[in-house]
Amino acid sequence: MSISTKNPYGPNPSDYLSNVNSFKIIDTTLREGEQFSNAFFTVDSKVKIAKALDEFGVDYIELTSPVASDQSKTELETICKLGLKAKVLTHIRCNMNDAKVAVNCGVDGVNVFIGTSQFMRQYSHGKDMSFITNAAVQVIEFVKSKGLEIRFSTEDSFRSDIVDLLNIYTTVDKIGVDRIGIADTVGGGNPRQVYELVRTIKSCVSCDIETHFHNDTGCAIANAYTALEAGSKYIDTTVLGIGERNGIVPLGGFMARMVVSAPDYVKSKYKLIKLRELETLVAETVKVNIPFNNPITGFCAFTHKAGIHAKAILANPSTYEILNPADFGLSRYIHFANRLTGWNAIKARVEQLNLDLTDDQIKEITHKIKNLGDVRPLSIDDVDSIIKDYHSDAAKVELAKKEQEEQRRALESSADDDDDDDGDEPQQKKQKISSQ
Amino acid sequence: MSISTKNPYGPNPSDYLSNVNSFKIIDTTLREGEQFSNAFFTVDSKVKIAKALDEFGVDYIELTSPVASDQSKTELETICKLGLKAKVLTHIRCNMNDAKVAVNCGVDGVNVFIGTSQFMRQYSHGKDMSFITNAAVQVIEFVKSKGLEIRFSTEDSFRSDIVDLLNIYTTVDKIGVDRIGIADTVGGGNPRQVYELVRTIKSCVSCDIETHFHNDTGCAIANAYTALEAGSKYIDTTVLGIGERNGIVPLGGFMARMVVSAPDYVKSKYKLIKLRELETLVAETVKVNIPFNNPITGFCAFTHKAGIHAKAILANPSTYEILNPADFGLSRYIHFANRLTGWNAIKARVEQLNLDLTDDQIKEITHKIKNLGDVRPLSIDDVDSIIKDYHSDAAKVELAKKEQEEQRRALESSADDDDDDDGDEPQQKKQKISSQ
Repeated sequence: MSISTKNPYGPNPSDYLSNVNSFKIIDTTLREGEQFSNAFFTVDSKVKIAKALDEFGVDYIELTSPVASDQSKTELETICKLGLKAKVLTHIRCNMNDAKVAVNCGVDGVNVFIGTSQFMRQYSHGKDMSFITNAAVQVIEFVKSKGLEIRFSTEDSFRSDIVDLLNIYTTVDKIGVDRIGIADTVGGGNPRQVYELVRTIKSCVSCDIETHFHNDTGCAIANAYTALEAGSKYIDTTVLGIGERNGIVPLGGFMARMVVSAPDYVKSKYKLIKLRELETLVAETVKVNIPFNNPITGFCAFTHKAGIHAKAILANPSTYEILNPADFGLSRYIHFANRLTGWNAIKARVEQLNLDLTDDQIKEITHKIKNLGDVRPLSIDDVDSIIKDYHSDAAKVELAKKEQEEQRRALESSADDDDDDDGDEPQQKKQKISSQ
Repeated sequence: MSISTKNPYGPNPSDYLSNVNSFKIIDTTLREGEQFSNAFFTVDSKVKIAKALDEFGVDYIELTSPVASDQSKTELETICKLGLKAKVLTHIRCNMNDAKVAVNCGVDGVNVFIGTSQFMRQYSHGKDMSFITNAAVQVIEFVKSKGLEIRFSTEDSFRSDIVDLLNIYTTVDKIGVDRIGIADTVGGGNPRQVYELVRTIKSCVSCDIETHFHNDTGCAIANAYTALEAGSKYIDTTVLGIGERNGIVPLGGFMARMVVSAPDYVKSKYKLIKLRELETLVAETVKVNIPFNNPITGFCAFTHKAGIHAKAILANPSTYEILNPADFGLSRYIHFANRLTGWNAIKARVEQLNLDLTDDQIKEITHKIKNLGDVRPLSIDDVDSIIKDYHSDAAKVELAKKEQEEQRRALESSADDDDDDDGDEPQQKKQKISSQ
């Protein structure tokens, strides 16, 4: 029986809208990530992170508005001068003052946003849709006149009126905006809702669509994927997902999703092998630990424990792995030192230790290991000791058998000469060893 | 302008299949969770966790097979005797030996599983579909004959042949299985794929559907939600998502998703206020930290930082919060001690400190705080010092003005008597204070 090579997690060929095989990443660790509670960036740390993102291969790097603080402006100008392959964006409010400062910082493009939901209009800026539309048109035409890329995004899109959204998106599309942004600012969106909204908007505009998903309800990665299926092309990410509250789409988790669905595209475009280094850099900068259950780089992402899993992984890792750790410069680990272990896992360990034992012997050892695993947590050393003790006992028994055999032969050859009862001594010796 | 009370994240009314408002939780922290790399459970810790899960209100608690080890059997029997409100299940391989041991442990039901994908059939158990079907029928009929609930699950369902799946599910449905299980064992599924598969299977069977999603590609919560939309009713969770590799649907993250979509159902059925305690218990037992970005209980899940966010949150928290921290016994925090802060956040702090300053004065203070925040990370004490210093300077200026005024009046009243030039002294004093 041969395994089919068709990728069951690939894009649905009927989805002509889908950008699963042609998406781009706008990494906003240096903007959304700066809004993470623990983040304090300096020029140096921003430069380091920008270079690491560029090396990884993200398409865009978004930075905090130069209007946010004097230092924010300096940092933006510094990173614009680095000559990165990635395009540099800044994220500003939808007004001419912010736009004028932004275009003079050396950026490749400007990401403007304004809240359009009733919540945002009432409790944030207090403006109505016609004010918002006028401001958007003015800012977009100004940024375009400077020859820069321009994205217009509504904040809190999923709680905005669909008619308002379509009105403003079609208006900015007509005047030549490069991208429109759809943002799940409060992180409440679910995948089928995302699919419907993105697809509806996609059918009304000719420009590209960028999406921004918060993770309050744990759906950010899945929403981003579904947005690509519905025709979005640009996904906002941050390293480890850092951002306001519990953050947005994490770059690493998103790579896990995409490498499964579009392996050739992802592996040829992004240096997956640099992911762990990039995550470690950001984790150290903002003083957090990489979550134990992080996709790909969590300490146990490629650890297999239950006996039934270990057995199959040893036969073919794809049985219980949809991701290949080698793609990320990592390796898998068979966890055999526990009560759930199985004899196939222990056999693999016996072979690693280069010891010679039969399957029946290994099953007996496995039983001993499970018994001890019932009583307390086991280390690898515990398991190795049990295996080695058993092996050494078995070797002693083997040796004893040989000695017994040799002595018997010696006795037989001298039987005619001497008729005493020393012959059962080796037998006693064997019994003693067996009961150790 | 009034805010609409319609829930934009609620179920789509046209989805007659949907169980978003009627789902049940099968928590498998004590089975799948035991397969987490770091897990070592004792009878005591299993009892403690089972009681906490029961208090939280999960519908079922699944435990490791009694065949896995002697201790596993003891633990299962012990928990069956606790008299929990939640039903107790054990998870066994699809064979009569395991089934016979399981039904004698006092369980309410048995969850059987067997791999049906080509991968599982070739590298795990090596059996064909007719063998699998016969084994399933035999085990199901046996467990039913004992008056217990029985679920039959295919492992690695998403890489299984759809014809094989429909054949075996319709067969076990006909003989009266209570639930069938659909499992994304390798964690590669995406939401629209999940929706299609669950919906297709739902249209072929009359029994309930349980789903089990691993989180290797970060989509477990979203997949579980979408499965409910497609007609699944039971969702497997573990506390903090612990399980093989990087685990499965986390109970807390799933609650975040569901309380947004089905608030009345979730709040009346589950004791959300116990979530943090439950997560802390399991985190301590398996020796991990709660991830910094965990939904709900991550340390910054309700922290608002950027000035524009803080402003709106102060006016109405729903502007930037889809979850209410009070539902979980938690509180929100406005992070005002940083370079991204805004004057509305500082104004709120000034009010908390019970100081009297004008908006213009607060804007001046905010500028000072942003300047210091550009140079180094700020503590709350830093901000409070800046505010208090400013307030005390302003008070001194106010005092000086009053003194000057009084002296001037005194001078005016004695002007006719004495004509010297001491009158400008208070003015000098004021200037000195202003330049401090």
